[in-house]
Amino acid sequence: MLVQTLIERKRDGGALEAGEWQSLLSRYLRGEVPDYQMSALLMAILWRGLDDGELTALTEAMLESGSRLDWPGFGVPRVDKHSTGGVGDKVSLVLAPLVASCGVAVPMMSGRGLGHTGGTTDKLESIAGFRTDLTLDEVRAQVREIGVAMFGQSDAIAPADARLYALRDVTGTVPSVPLIAASILSKKRAEGLDGLVLDVKTGSGAFMPDLDSAQTLARTMVRLGEAGGCRTTALITAMDRPLGRAIGNSLELEEALQALTGEGPTDLRELTGRLAVEMLLLAKVADTEQEAQLEVARALASGRALDKFRQLIEAQGGNPGVVDDPGSLPQATEVELFEASEDGVIGAVDPRPLGRAVVEMGGGRRQLGDAIDHSVGFVVTARPGMEVSAGQPVASVFARDPAGIEAGMQALRASIRYGPADPPLPLIVGRVTSADLRHR
Amino acid sequence: MLVQTLIERKRDGGALEAGEWQSLLSRYLRGEVPDYQMSALLMAILWRGLDDGELTALTEAMLESGSRLDWPGFGVPRVDKHSTGGVGDKVSLVLAPLVASCGVAVPMMSGRGLGHTGGTTDKLESIAGFRTDLTLDEVRAQVREIGVAMFGQSDAIAPADARLYALRDVTGTVPSVPLIAASILSKKRAEGLDGLVLDVKTGSGAFMPDLDSAQTLARTMVRLGEAGGCRTTALITAMDRPLGRAIGNSLELEEALQALTGEGPTDLRELTGRLAVEMLLLAKVADTEQEAQLEVARALASGRALDKFRQLIEAQGGNPGVVDDPGSLPQATEVELFEASEDGVIGAVDPRPLGRAVVEMGGGRRQLGDAIDHSVGFVVTARPGMEVSAGQPVASVFARDPAGIEAGMQALRASIRYGPADPPLPLIVGRVTSADLRHR
Repeated sequence: MLVQTLIERKRDGGALEAGEWQSLLSRYLRGEVPDYQMSALLMAILWRGLDDGELTALTEAMLESGSRLDWPGFGVPRVDKHSTGGVGDKVSLVLAPLVASCGVAVPMMSGRGLGHTGGTTDKLESIAGFRTDLTLDEVRAQVREIGVAMFGQSDAIAPADARLYALRDVTGTVPSVPLIAASILSKKRAEGLDGLVLDVKTGSGAFMPDLDSAQTLARTMVRLGEAGGCRTTALITAMDRPLGRAIGNSLELEEALQALTGEGPTDLRELTGRLAVEMLLLAKVADTEQEAQLEVARALASGRALDKFRQLIEAQGGNPGVVDDPGSLPQATEVELFEASEDGVIGAVDPRPLGRAVVEMGGGRRQLGDAIDHSVGFVVTARPGMEVSAGQPVASVFARDPAGIEAGMQALRASIRYGPADPPLPLIVGRVTSADLRHR
Repeated sequence: MLVQTLIERKRDGGALEAGEWQSLLSRYLRGEVPDYQMSALLMAILWRGLDDGELTALTEAMLESGSRLDWPGFGVPRVDKHSTGGVGDKVSLVLAPLVASCGVAVPMMSGRGLGHTGGTTDKLESIAGFRTDLTLDEVRAQVREIGVAMFGQSDAIAPADARLYALRDVTGTVPSVPLIAASILSKKRAEGLDGLVLDVKTGSGAFMPDLDSAQTLARTMVRLGEAGGCRTTALITAMDRPLGRAIGNSLELEEALQALTGEGPTDLRELTGRLAVEMLLLAKVADTEQEAQLEVARALASGRALDKFRQLIEAQGGNPGVVDDPGSLPQATEVELFEASEDGVIGAVDPRPLGRAVVEMGGGRRQLGDAIDHSVGFVVTARPGMEVSAGQPVASVFARDPAGIEAGMQALRASIRYGPADPPLPLIVGRVTSADLRHR
């Protein structure tokens, strides 16, 4: 097989066969196919797309490039969630223990911060001692014991995806729906799941802002998940403003703790609840939406969800004391209020400048391996549609030095806009299930 | 400048600025831009194209990556020809001495065999001792002295093009009109020319077989040449059958010697004559086509053209005796006649199988640096439209061993088709001058 011939076929709009994808990726991992051929192929894929058969074959090839979690004799249904990423999106921190406390096993692999969006493993590491670098054996044992594990991406899982992702990142080949779908599904399918809920973000703070792309991505991933034997549902949700109020690692962890007791910002509670209901339905531990809602409400009100989080922290070496004393999380040394600059109505709160500022203030990475400061970030109470008076505090900046405060204030000025604007997106913009695909 | 940003802009259909092309190529040559980013950009260019400004800027950047021939105080007009390549295309061997013998300086840089097409420098090296690896100083001195030099691509000229060409070759990014145009023009412009004639091939044996692509390429190159201050004319010519009868290095050299005395196959004589007329017009040594034709006919009939070839061979270290004794060229040890297999009319003589067979028989390279056998090849008298009887010899195979004879016979069976067919293309399919571009 000449790689060049495969590139030419894709370039001319043709399709590669399953065996060709398999052989291509294993040769790439062995160093027999150079990066410069792979990047040309990736650009051709971005141009020409992949048909359903190719997409399944590529995903399988990426999946099979590494290990997977298997669950022999473990009768508990396993369900996970994936989000395409946003600003203030701390849903995973609430959802994993919540759903696990409802009798569903959640082996949740998460990423680090990427671009302007935060990462779940970074947020968890706000907790002193918390280990996210679990081995697959540790994950298996912990999920069997307490029903949940939250861990970082392992080299053992889908190494071909990791190599391709790094290459895509520097060759302008990230925004391809099939490549994104294959990357996500190859990793999630390695968890050995019965069900998967996808939270596909849309709006200015999402990686693919336009709704059309979000819908295409949601449909593509549901089709791909189902083709791999994993029940899959996608919600398309709003990322035209931050989710909840807190942005930044330990600030988001604190807000997640509130949500685990049924408190905290309405949008965070509502989205977490909807995703939890979908997960319970896919796990078949609830038969109807109403039943699932009731179960979720009970888990929150009874303290079971919060207890599960405490158990999780303890199992992964963290200090469970943060659950009852969030003040023990890393605290910023500098805090400053941000006031509305005029009387009027807030038109928009753009997530991107805030997400970027967290990185700039030291709360994210510019380069792989950078240490991060978990304490920095924002609490933003300003929401689109809110009436404000000049001088009214609408946000706080948490930083480690005056330069960080300045960067944060500047980001808030760029983010918060006044005056009439398009109405914000509904929190849940759409839902895609396998049934929707059949009806098309 | 982040290369990634440039890739993204091109991917999204935008344009790079002149300074960006310049900086990109110089950083690429210094090893600061990796091949995997360049190949992704090349695929994006193949997809999105280049606008006129970008094409000029890329060509200039490639040109300026190396040295160029300069001609201070040399009053003789300099004109060259470039062919996009074909099977049996030995025109350069006739044209360079012919035009030089009409008082035009011809500093002709040529390539080696590529794919199924032969290369002028390989053909010249059929002559014992002939050196094609002239330095630029040697080229300058020889052109000043005898008006012509025929030399291989020098590392000193457009090194960025050489690097990019090698990368394109293995990443499926060859068939892009702007990339082909930039590659050709950057090298030709480095010769310091007053005029350039382009022979753009069309038909099954051409690199870009369809007429539309050939026309686009011709127009693009004429525009690009003129933009660089070089008078440029393109002919679009037939490559749906081999040119002339001989295919293979020393066989083609021998046929070129015939053409230099005004003999040999009609199509070769006609095409060479047309190209010579265009060159004389661009050089302004003739005012009208009639005048140029007369001058060309005189150079052939008087022996001036052949004398110039003898001078050229001598100047470049070759044995000028071959001119009067073509039998001293490398001769194949095995020769076999190929007979028509049926009574009827020949419908087509496909050039590709024959070109590929020359490589297989040892007359071309599979890999850079392979030694080649100059003696092997074909003489094909079969032409589309020719009436034949079964058993009538229509070609000969020249090989070094029985396996080569077998490969050659097989190629002839694949190439020669009987029965009604589309009429062959006219030898000269079209002509593009700068005036045509202005009128569009």
